[in-house]
Amino acid sequence: MRIAIIGFGVVGQGLAEILRDKAAELQAEQDFHCEIVAVATRSRGTLYHPDGLDAALLLEAIQKGHLGHYPHVYGLTRNWDALTLVRQCNADVVVEVSPTNLQTGQPALDLCYAAFDSGKHVVLANKGPLVAAFAALHERARRAGQLLRYEGTVMAGTPVIRLAQQALAGCRIIEARGILNGTTNYILTQMGAGMTYQEALAQAQKLGYAETDPSADVDGWDAAAKLAILSGVLYGQPFSLQAIDVQGITGITVQDIHAAAAAGERWKLIARLTPQGGSVYPTHIPLTDPLAAVSGATNAVTYVTDLLGSVTMVGSGAGRASTGFAVLSDLLDIHRQC
Amino acid sequence: MRIAIIGFGVVGQGLAEILRDKAAELQAEQDFHCEIVAVATRSRGTLYHPDGLDAALLLEAIQKGHLGHYPHVYGLTRNWDALTLVRQCNADVVVEVSPTNLQTGQPALDLCYAAFDSGKHVVLANKGPLVAAFAALHERARRAGQLLRYEGTVMAGTPVIRLAQQALAGCRIIEARGILNGTTNYILTQMGAGMTYQEALAQAQKLGYAETDPSADVDGWDAAAKLAILSGVLYGQPFSLQAIDVQGITGITVQDIHAAAAAGERWKLIARLTPQGGSVYPTHIPLTDPLAAVSGATNAVTYVTDLLGSVTMVGSGAGRASTGFAVLSDLLDIHRQC
Repeated sequence: MRIAIIGFGVVGQGLAEILRDKAAELQAEQDFHCEIVAVATRSRGTLYHPDGLDAALLLEAIQKGHLGHYPHVYGLTRNWDALTLVRQCNADVVVEVSPTNLQTGQPALDLCYAAFDSGKHVVLANKGPLVAAFAALHERARRAGQLLRYEGTVMAGTPVIRLAQQALAGCRIIEARGILNGTTNYILTQMGAGMTYQEALAQAQKLGYAETDPSADVDGWDAAAKLAILSGVLYGQPFSLQAIDVQGITGITVQDIHAAAAAGERWKLIARLTPQGGSVYPTHIPLTDPLAAVSGATNAVTYVTDLLGSVTMVGSGAGRASTGFAVLSDLLDIHRQC
Repeated sequence: MRIAIIGFGVVGQGLAEILRDKAAELQAEQDFHCEIVAVATRSRGTLYHPDGLDAALLLEAIQKGHLGHYPHVYGLTRNWDALTLVRQCNADVVVEVSPTNLQTGQPALDLCYAAFDSGKHVVLANKGPLVAAFAALHERARRAGQLLRYEGTVMAGTPVIRLAQQALAGCRIIEARGILNGTTNYILTQMGAGMTYQEALAQAQKLGYAETDPSADVDGWDAAAKLAILSGVLYGQPFSLQAIDVQGITGITVQDIHAAAAAGERWKLIARLTPQGGSVYPTHIPLTDPLAAVSGATNAVTYVTDLLGSVTMVGSGAGRASTGFAVLSDLLDIHRQC
């Protein structure tokens, strides 16, 4: 399998590290061999070689600050823009992991369309294109006879999308409830341990969980975007962000936390989905709920099903290796289908 | 797909109910159509019709106590023994859900071999054949070019085997830790709520969780058998029951439970597996461990992986619909592969 990586930040580099370190294991155990033929970034250069690039050298170059540090070899192209690259390169799969806008899904959305139209499968790890154009993306993939995978968009590599689509196939998922945002769960957990909201937020920022502008997390929009994607996965037709009822955690006080603890409960930012609608809201849940035990930056989803009762998956919701693995698992899934 | 069901107790009937109730949904959503062509029981009759049996009529007949109550139709065979049935019927898949012996795996094991040798795939929901002959069964399936699936043997329909084999493919699973026996977890949970061991056991028996002779559960052997199967799934070579270090819960006192609660911990019967070995033992774990929140008859497994950190799946570990679904999910998996 030949892949083109668009965007070479945390996720792209995480994937390259896995491919560098696990090549022999993936070949032996999954019969999977993967060549990175192209890498495109917005401001740190672009590389294309139809015979493949060396993952270790790519990582060395980007650590020096620019892909221009990649050694020159015969047949290497350095000056294509991302759209030309997606259209013209010989990749089987375009891995789109560049930063995207949640409202428009651009610039990734146009690159996805170009990939399908030039006969390439697409793996996404960012939410933008799916939140902006879930149905259109799937329709375009279907028309082109190409596959679209995006396990990394919800709970990083923890396979909640694959669980719903494959392992639970045959069950009806009546409801999904989850903790889909690590930053807010970390803040609520720290408040439960005695910090104020401001102290916990500062700690989350120090640890790199929260952005300098934490509003997308603490106001609930990150969780809502993941819920929108899950609604498409579970029910075919996704809810738009505007259709989801969203409330963040900024109104939770230390007194609220104490009152819940006294009642044997914990505050969580819950994202909830049924065929009728989606909502994100802070609430206190009893300790007997598996979601109550999900602490720190960990995420979880409970699927309530007709045949199996409730199935809960708990795992990391972010991180370099975890999201890199999400992309790998999508590539392996495409490999198995083709 | 044509299937033969060997054994028509809780699991076989659970499967027949799902096929009766979900035929249209499975056809529409999974492109899956399944005919039950044969049902064999040890003492309640046997039926075979190459064109298929009616699931609703099968369930009515067995509720009257014997498959002899199934109405007569042209082409129906009623007198084959299970081995003849497996060899001679036109099923694509043999679903073996009859009671089996953990030491020998019989009589199911010989029926599995006969199925492979006559060109049929096998789905197992009972642990016996796998605990007794994991490697031999897989080798026989491989030689015959047939598939072997057994999601229901560990945590019923909660897809912990499919999670390890498919969704986490590409990760290395360094360690598995789980609560694999619902009866003991129910007893420990009730002791945590104030009951004595004897009271909790009596309650579990009343609710149907525990057998009249509860030793397989409370002495840890049921969990050990599931661990033996998981060791085969994760590491290729299964540990024998004898190689697993097994300790049950009968030594846990109310004082132990109280002492743990005072320290913010809970007692659990933990099954633990690494490439080096397996063990089942009661221990107290902190409330921050996702397994600590798993209460009552619920089961859970945590996989510790190289790329993803820990992934925990929590769900039902038994039950008619859940185990029926386990078999269905195996049938769907075979359907997708063929």
